[in-house]
Amino acid sequence: MQIAILLYDQFTALDAIGPYEVLSALPGSSVVFTAERAGPVTADTGACSVIATASLAEVPHPDIVLVPGSGQSTAAQMANGQVLGWLRAADEHTSWTTSVCTGSMILAAAGLLAGRRATSHWLTLGRLAEHGARPARKRVVIDGKYITAAGVSAGIDMALTLAGRIAGRDLAEAIQLMLEYDPQPPYSAGSPQAARADLVAELRWRYRDVLAPAGQGTRLSG
Amino acid sequence: MQIAILLYDQFTALDAIGPYEVLSALPGSSVVFTAERAGPVTADTGACSVIATASLAEVPHPDIVLVPGSGQSTAAQMANGQVLGWLRAADEHTSWTTSVCTGSMILAAAGLLAGRRATSHWLTLGRLAEHGARPARKRVVIDGKYITAAGVSAGIDMALTLAGRIAGRDLAEAIQLMLEYDPQPPYSAGSPQAARADLVAELRWRYRDVLAPAGQGTRLSG
Repeated sequence: MQIAILLYDQFTALDAIGPYEVLSALPGSSVVFTAERAGPVTADTGACSVIATASLAEVPHPDIVLVPGSGQSTAAQMANGQVLGWLRAADEHTSWTTSVCTGSMILAAAGLLAGRRATSHWLTLGRLAEHGARPARKRVVIDGKYITAAGVSAGIDMALTLAGRIAGRDLAEAIQLMLEYDPQPPYSAGSPQAARADLVAELRWRYRDVLAPAGQGTRLSG
Repeated sequence: MQIAILLYDQFTALDAIGPYEVLSALPGSSVVFTAERAGPVTADTGACSVIATASLAEVPHPDIVLVPGSGQSTAAQMANGQVLGWLRAADEHTSWTTSVCTGSMILAAAGLLAGRRATSHWLTLGRLAEHGARPARKRVVIDGKYITAAGVSAGIDMALTLAGRIAGRDLAEAIQLMLEYDPQPPYSAGSPQAARADLVAELRWRYRDVLAPAGQGTRLSG
């Protein structure tokens, strides 16, 4: 079972590494980080680079595709013919096509979420409709073989859900226990419903150009 | 504010990347991944490599140190003179010295947790006492400038706690909201108290050699 995690310049690292940590524990799984070109790919902070060990051309038929999000370069990827072409071709053979955060905008731009229920980072959720998807305000949304997760950390919940679908509840629970995923956030500000209204408004304003064309975006997590 | 995240062969990627995603969003912070030698460092799955952009010698006085854990090579790092020496020297100047998962065993081996309350992955928690620390069954433990987190995913809770201490509650809540950290695990198996007893027993048996000498360990998350 080959699990291809797409990397691209200025991706958000936790979007990719959260699900990676869960899915790489599935028996018989083989995770491959893939990008247009093999080699280091630098995340949106500039401080973290993860190595893509294979080019997209070298990963034509993964069983699972995972697309992370980005606050800076989602728009660039939504217009990246190589990435969109690879996603469309890979999707013809996948068992599961998945995304975290604004990765769903990239899937939508590839035409893969047309008419489907999907989620995204709360800042971009409404805009999924511009690309034919049906926005659903949920942390993890499953529609057929398409699983989308809300912002950044939601990838962990998505991957555990997927692990359960693939390998059964016992195995997924074993992974959860090994990752000691018993979350206890010190604050209750993890969703726009839970957070203070002024904080939500401030972030909406600060990140109003999060899907702006390349070079004009702002870091989603900064 | 320089935040040094230690990398070493066979580290657990989420231990490092969870806190990185939180702490890199702190205003004025500069995260550096550091290892004995600069260059790619491969995680315990073999599938993920993160680049250390600086050698330990190039990061002598970080403000914050973070030590991730590993199921395969914790014991090796606990006997690694270069790593322990760097930790001891860096700790003389840090504002905060932190760990995730079995990273606390490495801090303890460096002598930095003597007499202090600390936590670790649930599988190794009891063994902290062998190195002079006082094991505390909590997700995040603060004792002076030392903050230790429980297994793998607990690093996110630890980093948000630390962010609040450094930059205040409003900023920490803004980071939580941007990372949409509103966890909703699909199962309730994230701690040995919550998980089924037979599952806990099975994992205790399977990972009984998790702190075994180099080359004999088993992957903690697999």
